[in-house]
Amino acid sequence: MSNSYNELRWNPLLGCWVIVSSQRSKRPWRQVERCPFCPGSDETGFGWDVLLLDNKFPALRREARVSRESRDIYLVREAYGSAKVVVETPEHEGDLDRIPFENLVKYIETLRSVTEKECMDEKIQYVLPFRNKGEVIGVSLTHPHSQVYVLPFIPPRVAREIEMQKKFIEEHGECLICHITKLERDGKERVIYENRDFVAVLPFYAMWPYEVHIYPLRHFGSLKELKKEEEKTLADAIRFVVATYNSLFGFSLPYMMILHQAPCRGDVDFHFHVEFYPVHRSQDKLKYPAGIEWGGWVFTYDGLPEERAGELKEAARRAYEKLKASGTPPLNSPP
Amino acid sequence: MSNSYNELRWNPLLGCWVIVSSQRSKRPWRQVERCPFCPGSDETGFGWDVLLLDNKFPALRREARVSRESRDIYLVREAYGSAKVVVETPEHEGDLDRIPFENLVKYIETLRSVTEKECMDEKIQYVLPFRNKGEVIGVSLTHPHSQVYVLPFIPPRVAREIEMQKKFIEEHGECLICHITKLERDGKERVIYENRDFVAVLPFYAMWPYEVHIYPLRHFGSLKELKKEEEKTLADAIRFVVATYNSLFGFSLPYMMILHQAPCRGDVDFHFHVEFYPVHRSQDKLKYPAGIEWGGWVFTYDGLPEERAGELKEAARRAYEKLKASGTPPLNSPP
Repeated sequence: MSNSYNELRWNPLLGCWVIVSSQRSKRPWRQVERCPFCPGSDETGFGWDVLLLDNKFPALRREARVSRESRDIYLVREAYGSAKVVVETPEHEGDLDRIPFENLVKYIETLRSVTEKECMDEKIQYVLPFRNKGEVIGVSLTHPHSQVYVLPFIPPRVAREIEMQKKFIEEHGECLICHITKLERDGKERVIYENRDFVAVLPFYAMWPYEVHIYPLRHFGSLKELKKEEEKTLADAIRFVVATYNSLFGFSLPYMMILHQAPCRGDVDFHFHVEFYPVHRSQDKLKYPAGIEWGGWVFTYDGLPEERAGELKEAARRAYEKLKASGTPPLNSPP
Repeated sequence: MSNSYNELRWNPLLGCWVIVSSQRSKRPWRQVERCPFCPGSDETGFGWDVLLLDNKFPALRREARVSRESRDIYLVREAYGSAKVVVETPEHEGDLDRIPFENLVKYIETLRSVTEKECMDEKIQYVLPFRNKGEVIGVSLTHPHSQVYVLPFIPPRVAREIEMQKKFIEEHGECLICHITKLERDGKERVIYENRDFVAVLPFYAMWPYEVHIYPLRHFGSLKELKKEEEKTLADAIRFVVATYNSLFGFSLPYMMILHQAPCRGDVDFHFHVEFYPVHRSQDKLKYPAGIEWGGWVFTYDGLPEERAGELKEAARRAYEKLKASGTPPLNSPP
């Protein structure tokens, strides 16, 4: 661990922290030998169905060292926190629509308890669970797994959402996502799936071609507030969206899945939700974010969201038939 | 052009416009037959060295049609504007360090005059020139070219930079980038190249492993304010950075290049600059932005910026030798 640094550097041009970690460049890439997430590896052992691990090459640590002190406007802080891995199944291949449904419920439960536990540390501001799937997204380990970043700051995108939600409540006296949820359930044009507690839509304002958001019908902010029965209905909604993606083009679709929740503390009114960003724009073409997206943060959407929602609705019907044949059928049929 | 829509949709979660264009999904992809940017094509004709074209599948148009009207909080506007292409050379292959130096000067001059001309339209707020290079970035046409988006709004990333620069001036009575430029020229640790008017650095707060910014030493905001001699010195700095990239790993390095300038109008104090984002993190590995970057806007930097700056400095020495042997040597030797 000599020459191993985990630090935050302040980007004064954009007003955000960059996490600098010097040892991550040495991490293994698309390891071919032995899967570290399969049962019986050094990290995993035996006798589990869903497993919470520490990332072996974490960007953040509780015992973080900095490479240099702050100087002038160049601010350096310890990258205090941690990076966790949630292995969702002992099976080496698959996706969230193929693992036993009980695993998926336990997975949600794990994300909830990680949030609860990590937020007890007063130096932690935010818990960000996400899932990268697919080689084109750069996933180095194919064994199904998610990640959780435990952060000493609120991620800029979430901070922006908090700001926009705050402004909306002030102006309209109503929660922004509660309002959107009403509009979508009214129009149904972009609704992909709905159960008792959650609705999945391709948003009117999607940035990725097949972007889908899952919004809870009940207004709550953090995984900590998730009710026991909502763990099941959230698992059901997530499974349905993933099954829909995997029914869209006839192959297992790469995607990013991100859970946006309220910060650990503070008087923040936030509406919890899940966002999915698949990177395909058709069966054989990817959406490549490049100069305009990275350099301007401007997204161009190819096609119309309503047309793509139509494609997803068709895929949802195929997904429904498949899931119905599994041990645990979906809680609802697609609209 | 039936069923062809170019509209802006407001994303209320993030407070930004998404450009929706329905006919772009039909655009050709990695055309193999005839290069549309080579001399003698339908679009190009003969007898040119640098050519300004209209994008045949523009995300924005002056005669934009919307697919639907605004409803409730779902705002729709015409995607009024245009998308241009600048072909930097008649040669089918190459990069900005290989084309005749006069072309590069003319290229800068073209970007300046496009900015001038397009900003005269009162409905245009911003001119964003950028350059995507490399298949891994998704570039469909290999013939060297840049793009210019002519926008009816200020890109969110630039808006953020404007906000941060404004705050800094208010707090410190000095321009943020003027201050950074001083710090970098003082320390020299991250300076890759410098000529009379511009300095190229791998920023202290880089997000991409080999990110480089070119900052003008003189404080000005827009390409419109570029002096005649600065067209040459900017071309020299850009050429040097690109040559350094192409000397880094022994292959022509993919990158995004973005020019950040002041908006067309308004009382905005902004420091013009150029940003480069190469996507490699080593000779054979890419940096894949995924869940944490897209879902949180949090960047993790693998390695230390100062170590990577050291690698670029070595590449800069090799680049210098190559460029010295060309018809037009660099204006300066690397530090």
